[in-house]
Amino acid sequence: MDTHTDGLVVAYVGGGSREWAPKLVTDLARCESLSGTVRLHDVDREAAERNARFGNWVEDREEAAGNWTYEAVHDLGDALEGADFVVFSTQFDPAETFVHDLDVPREHGIYGAVAATIGPGGMFRAMRTMPVYREFAAAVREHCPDAWVFNYTNPVTFVTRALYEEYPDINAVGLCHEVFGLQSTLADLVAEYLDAERPSREDIEVNVKGINHFTWVDEARWRGRDLLDLVDRHVEREGVVREYSAEELEDASGFVDNDQVTWELYERFGILPAAGDRHLVEFAPWFIRGGKEGLNRWGVKRTPSEYRARHWEEDDTDHQTTNVEALMDEEAFELTETGEVTVDLMRALVGLEPFVTNVNLPNRGQMDDVERGAVVETNARFTADSATPLVAGTLPRPLHGLVSTHVENQETLVEAAFEGDLDRAYEAFLCDPQVLALDPDDARDLFRDLVAAEREYLTDWNLDDAAVLD
Amino acid sequence: MDTHTDGLVVAYVGGGSREWAPKLVTDLARCESLSGTVRLHDVDREAAERNARFGNWVEDREEAAGNWTYEAVHDLGDALEGADFVVFSTQFDPAETFVHDLDVPREHGIYGAVAATIGPGGMFRAMRTMPVYREFAAAVREHCPDAWVFNYTNPVTFVTRALYEEYPDINAVGLCHEVFGLQSTLADLVAEYLDAERPSREDIEVNVKGINHFTWVDEARWRGRDLLDLVDRHVEREGVVREYSAEELEDASGFVDNDQVTWELYERFGILPAAGDRHLVEFAPWFIRGGKEGLNRWGVKRTPSEYRARHWEEDDTDHQTTNVEALMDEEAFELTETGEVTVDLMRALVGLEPFVTNVNLPNRGQMDDVERGAVVETNARFTADSATPLVAGTLPRPLHGLVSTHVENQETLVEAAFEGDLDRAYEAFLCDPQVLALDPDDARDLFRDLVAAEREYLTDWNLDDAAVLD
Amino acid sequence: MDTHTDGLVVAYVGGGSREWAPKLVTDLARCESLSGTVRLHDVDREAAERNARFGNWVEDREEAAGNWTYEAVHDLGDALEGADFVVFSTQFDPAETFVHDLDVPREHGIYGAVAATIGPGGMFRAMRTMPVYREFAAAVREHCPDAWVFNYTNPVTFVTRALYEEYPDINAVGLCHEVFGLQSTLADLVAEYLDAERPSREDIEVNVKGINHFTWVDEARWRGRDLLDLVDRHVEREGVVREYSAEELEDASGFVDNDQVTWELYERFGILPAAGDRHLVEFAPWFIRGGKEGLNRWGVKRTPSEYRARHWEEDDTDHQTTNVEALMDEEAFELTETGEVTVDLMRALVGLEPFVTNVNLPNRGQMDDVERGAVVETNARFTADSATPLVAGTLPRPLHGLVSTHVENQETLVEAAFEGDLDRAYEAFLCDPQVLALDPDDARDLFRDLVAAEREYLTDWNLDDAAVLD
Amino acid sequence: MDTHTDGLVVAYVGGGSREWAPKLVTDLARCESLSGTVRLHDVDREAAERNARFGNWVEDREEAAGNWTYEAVHDLGDALEGADFVVFSTQFDPAETFVHDLDVPREHGIYGAVAATIGPGGMFRAMRTMPVYREFAAAVREHCPDAWVFNYTNPVTFVTRALYEEYPDINAVGLCHEVFGLQSTLADLVAEYLDAERPSREDIEVNVKGINHFTWVDEARWRGRDLLDLVDRHVEREGVVREYSAEELEDASGFVDNDQVTWELYERFGILPAAGDRHLVEFAPWFIRGGKEGLNRWGVKRTPSEYRARHWEEDDTDHQTTNVEALMDEEAFELTETGEVTVDLMRALVGLEPFVTNVNLPNRGQMDDVERGAVVETNARFTADSATPLVAGTLPRPLHGLVSTHVENQETLVEAAFEGDLDRAYEAFLCDPQVLALDPDDARDLFRDLVAAEREYLTDWNLDDAAVLD
Repeated sequence: MDTHTDGLVVAYVGGGSREWAPKLVTDLARCESLSGTVRLHDVDREAAERNARFGNWVEDREEAAGNWTYEAVHDLGDALEGADFVVFSTQFDPAETFVHDLDVPREHGIYGAVAATIGPGGMFRAMRTMPVYREFAAAVREHCPDAWVFNYTNPVTFVTRALYEEYPDINAVGLCHEVFGLQSTLADLVAEYLDAERPSREDIEVNVKGINHFTWVDEARWRGRDLLDLVDRHVEREGVVREYSAEELEDASGFVDNDQVTWELYERFGILPAAGDRHLVEFAPWFIRGGKEGLNRWGVKRTPSEYRARHWEEDDTDHQTTNVEALMDEEAFELTETGEVTVDLMRALVGLEPFVTNVNLPNRGQMDDVERGAVVETNARFTADSATPLVAGTLPRPLHGLVSTHVENQETLVEAAFEGDLDRAYEAFLCDPQVLALDPDDARDLFRDLVAAEREYLTDWNLDDAAVLD
Repeated sequence: MDTHTDGLVVAYVGGGSREWAPKLVTDLARCESLSGTVRLHDVDREAAERNARFGNWVEDREEAAGNWTYEAVHDLGDALEGADFVVFSTQFDPAETFVHDLDVPREHGIYGAVAATIGPGGMFRAMRTMPVYREFAAAVREHCPDAWVFNYTNPVTFVTRALYEEYPDINAVGLCHEVFGLQSTLADLVAEYLDAERPSREDIEVNVKGINHFTWVDEARWRGRDLLDLVDRHVEREGVVREYSAEELEDASGFVDNDQVTWELYERFGILPAAGDRHLVEFAPWFIRGGKEGLNRWGVKRTPSEYRARHWEEDDTDHQTTNVEALMDEEAFELTETGEVTVDLMRALVGLEPFVTNVNLPNRGQMDDVERGAVVETNARFTADSATPLVAGTLPRPLHGLVSTHVENQETLVEAAFEGDLDRAYEAFLCDPQVLALDPDDARDLFRDLVAAEREYLTDWNLDDAAVLD
Repeated sequence: MDTHTDGLVVAYVGGGSREWAPKLVTDLARCESLSGTVRLHDVDREAAERNARFGNWVEDREEAAGNWTYEAVHDLGDALEGADFVVFSTQFDPAETFVHDLDVPREHGIYGAVAATIGPGGMFRAMRTMPVYREFAAAVREHCPDAWVFNYTNPVTFVTRALYEEYPDINAVGLCHEVFGLQSTLADLVAEYLDAERPSREDIEVNVKGINHFTWVDEARWRGRDLLDLVDRHVEREGVVREYSAEELEDASGFVDNDQVTWELYERFGILPAAGDRHLVEFAPWFIRGGKEGLNRWGVKRTPSEYRARHWEEDDTDHQTTNVEALMDEEAFELTETGEVTVDLMRALVGLEPFVTNVNLPNRGQMDDVERGAVVETNARFTADSATPLVAGTLPRPLHGLVSTHVENQETLVEAAFEGDLDRAYEAFLCDPQVLALDPDDARDLFRDLVAAEREYLTDWNLDDAAVLD
Repeated sequence: MDTHTDGLVVAYVGGGSREWAPKLVTDLARCESLSGTVRLHDVDREAAERNARFGNWVEDREEAAGNWTYEAVHDLGDALEGADFVVFSTQFDPAETFVHDLDVPREHGIYGAVAATIGPGGMFRAMRTMPVYREFAAAVREHCPDAWVFNYTNPVTFVTRALYEEYPDINAVGLCHEVFGLQSTLADLVAEYLDAERPSREDIEVNVKGINHFTWVDEARWRGRDLLDLVDRHVEREGVVREYSAEELEDASGFVDNDQVTWELYERFGILPAAGDRHLVEFAPWFIRGGKEGLNRWGVKRTPSEYRARHWEEDDTDHQTTNVEALMDEEAFELTETGEVTVDLMRALVGLEPFVTNVNLPNRGQMDDVERGAVVETNARFTADSATPLVAGTLPRPLHGLVSTHVENQETLVEAAFEGDLDRAYEAFLCDPQVLALDPDDARDLFRDLVAAEREYLTDWNLDDAAVLD
């Protein structure tokens, strides 16, 4: 990227997003040092146009420090052409896919909490999504080969890996908020135990290592204060570690997180997990073995698939997303901080100010015990046109064994996706720790059921010659 | 070892063995080129003396080509002093231990077939055995530092690894017959499909890679003929791949092997497993998820724990072991080939004739995708005072993921054993793929139950400070 | 280290230093946020006391922002006891050693420029110094095991490596200014070519990789501007790349650097060297093959050994060091910035502000093509009680070959030093690229001559049994 | 390869060879178990036809056990079509090339002995030869993709590596006799010191590791007897290690080998070199630093370039090659053993008898400290359609440093050759340890002189854009 601060072009693929796009609008409006154009591209044209209207409305506010123009761009190539930054944040019709990812495995006894990353549902999500991102990577190569690409689309590991598999020189990073959650928890502990004002989560320094949604922290400090000591004090306090009942969770949202899985894993392995409990249980499958009751006992509630389906309907009042029409109310509007790092990364990459955060990148040594090229999550330092991972070190042996399993399965699934080889995908599927708990015939039935349910999204796969479907 | 062929000293630890010791006696008697003394050491002195009588009786037969003297030696140091070769083949009281290894996990829903290698039972077997072999390794260092050590004791990986952990310069190899079984099966296929006389299993060339009891073959040839082609023909033949019923297996012995697990894994992963089905299911846990019915459906029968208990009683008529008293009948006695390779190895190591076979050795590059130092099973070539592994290459990715998990768990368990750290052992225990299927509370209960049942054999472990027992 | 900002204890070993100690005094006086005690330890007690007087005098100035007390401490253990930071900056009597390091190789046709890092002289410097730092590391372990240790003593790679060899958990970093020199050169180019005010060298972002004094930069930016483009423009400008004559250099100091070696290596290998030419030629031995004339042709002048000898005499007016007595003149005194990073590192390590700079640390993945554990130089990020290397990537193949040679030689020399094995040291000596140019008999004579000249400093080596001396 | 023993097709590229082709004829005639056709292909058609006549004449002898037909085949594709085995043994006009390889470097002070493997001459030989073998590999892929390819052409490392670079699935091995020479020397020592009949060299077991012509042996045994002990006794014997004078060598042939380099390296590094002294000095450049006198002092004589030129003339009586016309004398003819292993390898590869020998293969773990894919020389075991390297272990550190340098240079030169990038080639050239001894201007002049002298053979290189030629 030829670094500059004015006249920047940002292409937002999935720019009709009701959650992320408004946040980006807000953060750009708060940033004095950058200006340019944001092109919003979405298969839902209307949504992109609505967000463009919102963006331009915000820019008209007096409080808006930056100088940005928003436009909806309907052709992907037009949106990407000459872009300096690309944001990816897309998904398939969730009513059709999320629901299958969650419900079909449940019928086979796998009571996962999210099904967005790994396990049978997560793997099928990856199988659907990678062919699309292969095309996106090719489009980046054609239209804006030096652009910096921020990928928010799940499963982040698979999607980011697919981008690099198609276009090895792409400047792409996979972004995720889960580590922020741990930092917030630690900031709470600072306030609670240190008689200090609660610091912001950015002030909590953590050393991050692992793979997305199965990340770990072995050093955590605030102003030099070792926070793992605080965690030790916290988990020993009466009532912190406890069992939850199904009743207690009944009224909680599907995103409830009570840290019980976090504390249990910390006590077992001596290293702190850095993702929400709902994601951790996908990788630490002991917690999903007890079905609904078992999951609830650890304070985790399964995301109801109806929620996923309903989530995107117009009259949905339950969701976390933003109604931008409603926001365009001059009286009420405020430019509140979002906690997102996209604009911080942009500022660093154009050369304004170095920035360190956790990201997903192909391994070049930052995790010495993981295969090179596999996508891992660690801290990285962003400077002008450059993202440099920090050496994160290795994981405790048994956890490294689990991570290795996932790395091999992920690499296998990427290769399978690029060849459209369903039998190859089934090899990875079988060796997922969630599936290791199934009888061989059950495992095959589950795979076939998922193929049947999502067949329309698997058009890049060779289903006809697949022995597993025989 | 200063190589020579006469006056050799063999120390047999566990020399009261009813199965292996008579075989060694036979093979030595059939070998013209070596002579010397065999010292039989056993905590069961009487058994050692009985085998010594048998050995000397065999040597008195006219058919005995070699020239060997047998003696029971009651002190371990005396037995090892100046030995050229050491054989390890010991076990704890099986009625007390095997039974727990099998039955306690079953109570928690883990219906393993053998429990001798891995899984909850296999891990506890390792935890009991490693401290003993740590002492044996120290004794080798003291009394016969250059001796070649043949370890037959299970779990072979853990025991061999513990020998090297204690005494890194030890000349030890772990030996196992499971690959021979695959070679025999392939020899059968040669006879069946190639209109040829059945070759002996030694004539089947295979490239072996993996860890003990979870080994794989990606090349198999007889006189240049590719045998994987024959396997393909075989599994497609009507009736070869089929489901078994519990009834069919009712009268079968606990060691029944119908190759159904072998064929299923071969069809899924495109590489041939090289261990018996009963062992494979410990590492490929899908097959044990269906309980007795599920296991039987794949033609595998669980070794009854009563069998293990009964196996060593005087009046046991069911076992495979040898009543040496009965053998000492001049009329009936025959020096039949045993199929064992111990004497072939001895011949190679003293410089008579190079010999290639599969063995368990610390990894020095023979499996490029496995951590160096971990014990792996591949072919090795034995020449004078030298065992050189053959480069076996890498495993298919998802299988490599599984193997990595076990390698990390095994290394963790070895470290835990040398420190007596039960919490560390529990980390490995939790991440065993069999245990991944348990609820966290269940997993802990199972671990505690096994500790309780085998407490008297865990004297080298620090049970008092173990958090997992709190 | 238990992080705090007041009452810090700094132990300065070699605290009589006439060059570094006054700089530390100045930088501490300029820093508002830290306070404590500096203990100056030196075998030259008087020098330590003089520097203590200077330190306290400076603290009495009004301009002194911090609050520090200086004391000379004669016992090493007393100086280290409970220290938060340790600075190492020592050397042997240079008149006795530097002179040999330079002059003895010259008698054998090796016309090196500095002899402080590598080559015959550098290796003997390492052989003399490592035994001393082994003891220092043991003293740190005993008196201040959690202290952060800044090593400035040459040869930095060997000394830092020896500290870790003796005490693997030491928090030590090796520091060196050579990369700063490249940053300054690049800052000059910014001013010259970009019509901008000359930035400070700290604002030049570089990606550093290699081993000390043979470091390389493959990315260089100022405010996002790619500076390697500027280098390309610069070297093509008439007169920049040219030959120097001996006459031209006659009056230059022994530290003259005309960047000709830098530009030549950059043009050959496409990557920018990041050490001064005088050091580079020790690692890139083509440049020393032409003797004085050859070296001068590349604009490099050999440090005259008389200079080294004279450098430390009382009436030396030529040196770069500081006469602290003269500085204590209230009228003239100024607290000018020194450009050193020690205080920046201290501020970061106590948790005040993260800081990124190039340092020498054992390799944990920051250079993926270099053996783990070997000391390499890359950027690292310092935060509270933590130094995290940035992933620097790999070197171009042929340069990596040269670096591998040095890494193997250095590891060999460290092992040899810890065993006192002179023959082992000679193996490394022979394979140094400077020595590869000698006839075998010459090489041995040179080694023997160096041993003879420096025998009194090699007391930790076993000279009696060394075959190379026979 | 579909293994079979009758009707084999051998394609001999360079089949007009006066040295190797007659040996193959003899060995095939001595082998009872194989039969088929040998197609002799050569740019010198007449030479190929002469060898075909000789081959068929030998087959007509009564002593000929096998059943082979020889034919000269003028088209390369026709020769390779459907071949089971391919032999490569070619060279350029030696009067034009060898002479330059030797004489041009000498003018720049590099007094190499052979210039066939490495150093300036060896590198240019590689630069000329690799483009040809790239085409050969493509022809193998087209005409006989499963054939086993035996490469005898120097430089073996580069040529074998180029074959795999072009066609990664090729079944190629690089073959060389140098290790046999060490085995013969050791066999002599057995006869001399052990009061035993001299064994044949095949009976000397050695563990081989390194790169071609820079191979090392750390274990050597005959019937279990450690032969390194004998070497120790030998080198201590009066008169074994001594200096040679130029006069002594005056009348010796250019292939004289007095083992002085071997013993010196053995004494320095504690591991035995396994190539002739003439080749070793190319990799251990100390020995060529003293010019003619220095080389002679170590008992090595430079191959005179006139010899290379004259070697192939009709009336050459000095050479080692075979006049096949003269051999076709029924009275005098004898089928004497040649000591070559080609037919042993063929027998093993068709499934008759496993065979172990040293060969050059891409590294898959046989040398754990060398980059994967680089061509290394170790023992390998040949069985039906399979060549499996034996794990050779690592080299002593300083030697490993030298080998790493060559590996990086070789990989660089291969990449340069496939891109035709002369500047890239110059990077490797500069870092060759022989060239490290040159002044930078000298090094460039030497490179340019070699390009000028051999320009007609460098047609696949882009000379026009090469900066090094500016």
